[in-house]
Amino acid sequence: MYSFKNDYSEGAHPRIIEALTKTNMEQTVGYGLDEYCEKAKKRIQDIIGDKKADIHFFVGGTQTNQTAIAAFLKPYQAAVSADTGHINVHETGAIEATGHKVVTCRARDGKLTPVLIDKIIREHTDEHMVQPKLVYISNSTELGTVYNKEELTAISMYCKEHDLYLYMDGARLAAALASGKTDLTFCDIANLTDAFYIGGTKNGALFGEALAILNDTLKKDFRFMIKRQGGMLAKGRLLGIQFLELFTNDLYLELASHADQLSMKLKDGLIKKGYQFVSDSYTNMQFPIMSNETIKRLKKDFLFEEIESLDEENTVIRLVTSFATKEEAVEHFIKKL
Amino acid sequence: MYSFKNDYSEGAHPRIIEALTKTNMEQTVGYGLDEYCEKAKKRIQDIIGDKKADIHFFVGGTQTNQTAIAAFLKPYQAAVSADTGHINVHETGAIEATGHKVVTCRARDGKLTPVLIDKIIREHTDEHMVQPKLVYISNSTELGTVYNKEELTAISMYCKEHDLYLYMDGARLAAALASGKTDLTFCDIANLTDAFYIGGTKNGALFGEALAILNDTLKKDFRFMIKRQGGMLAKGRLLGIQFLELFTNDLYLELASHADQLSMKLKDGLIKKGYQFVSDSYTNMQFPIMSNETIKRLKKDFLFEEIESLDEENTVIRLVTSFATKEEAVEHFIKKL
Amino acid sequence: MYSFKNDYSEGAHPRIIEALTKTNMEQTVGYGLDEYCEKAKKRIQDIIGDKKADIHFFVGGTQTNQTAIAAFLKPYQAAVSADTGHINVHETGAIEATGHKVVTCRARDGKLTPVLIDKIIREHTDEHMVQPKLVYISNSTELGTVYNKEELTAISMYCKEHDLYLYMDGARLAAALASGKTDLTFCDIANLTDAFYIGGTKNGALFGEALAILNDTLKKDFRFMIKRQGGMLAKGRLLGIQFLELFTNDLYLELASHADQLSMKLKDGLIKKGYQFVSDSYTNMQFPIMSNETIKRLKKDFLFEEIESLDEENTVIRLVTSFATKEEAVEHFIKKL
Amino acid sequence: MYSFKNDYSEGAHPRIIEALTKTNMEQTVGYGLDEYCEKAKKRIQDIIGDKKADIHFFVGGTQTNQTAIAAFLKPYQAAVSADTGHINVHETGAIEATGHKVVTCRARDGKLTPVLIDKIIREHTDEHMVQPKLVYISNSTELGTVYNKEELTAISMYCKEHDLYLYMDGARLAAALASGKTDLTFCDIANLTDAFYIGGTKNGALFGEALAILNDTLKKDFRFMIKRQGGMLAKGRLLGIQFLELFTNDLYLELASHADQLSMKLKDGLIKKGYQFVSDSYTNMQFPIMSNETIKRLKKDFLFEEIESLDEENTVIRLVTSFATKEEAVEHFIKKL
Repeated sequence: MYSFKNDYSEGAHPRIIEALTKTNMEQTVGYGLDEYCEKAKKRIQDIIGDKKADIHFFVGGTQTNQTAIAAFLKPYQAAVSADTGHINVHETGAIEATGHKVVTCRARDGKLTPVLIDKIIREHTDEHMVQPKLVYISNSTELGTVYNKEELTAISMYCKEHDLYLYMDGARLAAALASGKTDLTFCDIANLTDAFYIGGTKNGALFGEALAILNDTLKKDFRFMIKRQGGMLAKGRLLGIQFLELFTNDLYLELASHADQLSMKLKDGLIKKGYQFVSDSYTNMQFPIMSNETIKRLKKDFLFEEIESLDEENTVIRLVTSFATKEEAVEHFIKKL
Repeated sequence: MYSFKNDYSEGAHPRIIEALTKTNMEQTVGYGLDEYCEKAKKRIQDIIGDKKADIHFFVGGTQTNQTAIAAFLKPYQAAVSADTGHINVHETGAIEATGHKVVTCRARDGKLTPVLIDKIIREHTDEHMVQPKLVYISNSTELGTVYNKEELTAISMYCKEHDLYLYMDGARLAAALASGKTDLTFCDIANLTDAFYIGGTKNGALFGEALAILNDTLKKDFRFMIKRQGGMLAKGRLLGIQFLELFTNDLYLELASHADQLSMKLKDGLIKKGYQFVSDSYTNMQFPIMSNETIKRLKKDFLFEEIESLDEENTVIRLVTSFATKEEAVEHFIKKL
Repeated sequence: MYSFKNDYSEGAHPRIIEALTKTNMEQTVGYGLDEYCEKAKKRIQDIIGDKKADIHFFVGGTQTNQTAIAAFLKPYQAAVSADTGHINVHETGAIEATGHKVVTCRARDGKLTPVLIDKIIREHTDEHMVQPKLVYISNSTELGTVYNKEELTAISMYCKEHDLYLYMDGARLAAALASGKTDLTFCDIANLTDAFYIGGTKNGALFGEALAILNDTLKKDFRFMIKRQGGMLAKGRLLGIQFLELFTNDLYLELASHADQLSMKLKDGLIKKGYQFVSDSYTNMQFPIMSNETIKRLKKDFLFEEIESLDEENTVIRLVTSFATKEEAVEHFIKKL
Repeated sequence: MYSFKNDYSEGAHPRIIEALTKTNMEQTVGYGLDEYCEKAKKRIQDIIGDKKADIHFFVGGTQTNQTAIAAFLKPYQAAVSADTGHINVHETGAIEATGHKVVTCRARDGKLTPVLIDKIIREHTDEHMVQPKLVYISNSTELGTVYNKEELTAISMYCKEHDLYLYMDGARLAAALASGKTDLTFCDIANLTDAFYIGGTKNGALFGEALAILNDTLKKDFRFMIKRQGGMLAKGRLLGIQFLELFTNDLYLELASHADQLSMKLKDGLIKKGYQFVSDSYTNMQFPIMSNETIKRLKKDFLFEEIESLDEENTVIRLVTSFATKEEAVEHFIKKL
């Protein structure tokens, strides 16, 4: 039984484990104020090209989204999201738990555009409605699609004109950047957003997300929010050590590249056998449509998620590759189609 | 420079690291539904003598307290705590963040009693005040003291009579149980409380707390709450693997025993030199009163926290030992006094 | 300048003012525990045919919805609403402010159906998503439409089968019941819902909504929630006195009948002149489509709300009648079309 | 049976009722944007000597405190209050409901001082604790005491130096200003605080509190918060009309003067009979200590609250006078002592 269920089925890349083992018995101060975290923060500032960026480490993505959005918004303000957005669907109301509405629109391929955002902004006219203030996008999206520089620039410009924050959920940012289908760089993203996070959990770390806050007005007292939301790791260095390793010798993009390539191999195999897809993904998730019969057969050898029943006979499934996915497994899957 | 600042200065006990390394490339399902978590849950059920207990793993203590208390209480209900309680002082309002007041009283040695609780219950008479519904105690307390069986039974009986939940914060439960100063066992605690947690972070795990919910009425849908609060770890097995190891061959109490013994060695050394203490602790934290001059001198070689300035010349400090504390370091400290 | 902007442009029906004046200098206890409130509660229990119903008075509708929904739901549970629902659009996130998501679907004429609800229920499968638990409907709806007995029974049955609460926002319940287009009675609604409120503000009271809680499991400690949400009126009797008067000699339905009849007169006038409508309303709100030119002209003599711009030349407006609307004003409006 | 239970036992001063009656059938826009509210706001701006002050009307005090404090604070910030403060004791956790801790200290006569506040500020040192940011004081206090100009200036200066907001709960501000025991004026309070409210409910209005926001940084988008908290009255003019009347021909202070004088008459009568008091109040509440026997006897003719049982034989009671209290009732009470 091989799992294409998600990109967090295994532990961490061996280099991460080694780094943790090597430093294990050292004494450091707690809560992310240690030297490893400091170094990792500087490394990330260099990579994103903003030495003034505030970097904060979190254990998981929902926690990152929840803490950041709750910190950035005033109580009556709302986040704008595609209806497929992770904060809208798969976080059990974690944003609403902090008192904020998520306002949504239907979005092609899971991607927002200035036109979609503008419709929402125009509808919210006065104090009887929430005030949309933060635009939430995922990159790569929940459907595996990616933003290119022109698209992100357009959203960024719209946000600046309308005094909105632009926040990027980068749980699978590595997969986007390594896909070869975007001209965006870390530096571009830092230039175009107010805050974004670099996902580690879904790209080879045991756990960990690195939030970069670029907008100066959002930086103050942020550590109070982390603690208040229950997100401050006692042995905070575990996050610093992991990100330091991920950003040594380009390991971060290398791992994503591996995942993306095997995902494309899956895609090619599926295309050759005539399967259709819900979205045109070049990252580490594929969403083919399969007959329920085929699904039943494949489930004897593979784990994967069924996303949506299309009709009585066909279902969308999700296949996810990761830093740890084995080429043989992909080949085996294609053979079994 | 040696640190007595806290019990999370190092990584994990080597056996924990080994267990994580050994299982690292296995595939498992996410979110704590894997076999390691299942085994760890069963192991803990056995140890606490309640096969029906619901066990949930968390990354940290504030998160555990916040999630459990928010799950157990109705919006208008409050937690009762000693004024020194972690939820009252050191969680940046994490309980209030979920909408609940923490009602406090001054408590000798950080310990609640039925008399102290009763005063609060009597004062809260109607719907113009919050309704105290959950009694929060820490064991060992924030001052290093411990509850014995008679004391916990008295509180438990009071709670049952007044329809209150009893919740024990066990961030340093190991240090309490290993101290030789309590007749309480895991089974007693499971019998006498509605929920409690077994702390891993401060006793040799990289991170991790195991919450046991004993009261059936508090069990339903608890995983929804974990996710909503941002506390559901994607690679949940990391928690299962660690707790399984901690509860193999009694490692858990062995580690605490080491910490407690070195703490007592510190205490004896301090007593011999004539120091006085804020509390009479037999666990892994000592709170001696020192002249500011002495503190300044010791800080050349040691890290520790200054807790409270007593007057212009004297300050309470906190010395914490852990599974990793070295006997030589303790001896060195005493010599330097 | 005559206003068709809403049904709360005037003060109260003169009988309400008289009742308040007459009792003004009497002494009563505060917070709705006085004799007038007691009498009004009993009167309402009689009218809805449930002597065990808990009746609570509120000053306004948003407050009622917010307090009731926050009281009924556990933190991770959500309300299901039509996308046009007042709690979704026009309460500035008051439900989310209490930590709960509002899950929505597009609904014809602002009305939910079992099919629409079922789609949402099926999509919410596990603890990674909120748990839909309460179905929110408005009657009459925000588009002026009403539920009949068969429709409400179908929703009620669906809710019972799926362990959902059914909650009816009755801000304009009077307009629905007086419309002649529903066979629903107060007793039916009390039989078919878990809770609903009887709106006073929009039907001749100075202010006031009467919440009826029918489901026993939702009754406990509700006054704590009212106070916590800031909704407990010191001189609570003002609410009791008003509802007592509204439910004396059928004043409540009489006032709504007046409003509905003048609304129908408006509708007839509009139809005769060839206007089209967004919804087929028989209650006190009409939603005709008008050219922007006509709107500009009418605005010289009348106040009303523009609801939605349909295209560059046409806009949906809202015309609202009330207990106080004058027949001449309606006639004048029609003449001016 | 005559009630000294509180200052909201009756309806409103007859002039208020007249004003409401006279304007009853006029049409106005909703939500406090009508002419009466505008006039009342200007009148209050004149009286407090700040033409730039933002004035917002609320129905009740808990709602005002909750909305203002939640609007002013960031999520991790706390309010500082005397332990007797209304927000700490008698609002069923309404502040915590919005996510904020109330940090308290024991305070003589219910009054805060820079020394008391400073102790709290010093104890809150880092991001592991809430950040105290707003100082909450009541004037007159919950014990009937008042601040003078020197005292308020000292607190105000401390707050400015430490970047804290100063907020005054003026539920019984009239009673303070009319007491003859303070040199404070409305203008002083507007100069020395960041926001305060002028209570109407407890001084002759049917209901109503007027919040004045003086600090420019706290003014933005405040109406969004009112709506979000469920506090926006549809027929908002009811508040404007009442405050306009209260501030016509000095009615506001005249009513309080009446209440204070009768309270002093009660006090004198009690002193003459040898009773002792918990606080030295010159406003409309007296807190004498009485034997339980006397209390039992008085309860045959009078309603009042028992505040605290001092020992087995003695209890503190609260006697409250109001705009409507009759001199004969006071004389009757003294006679019955």
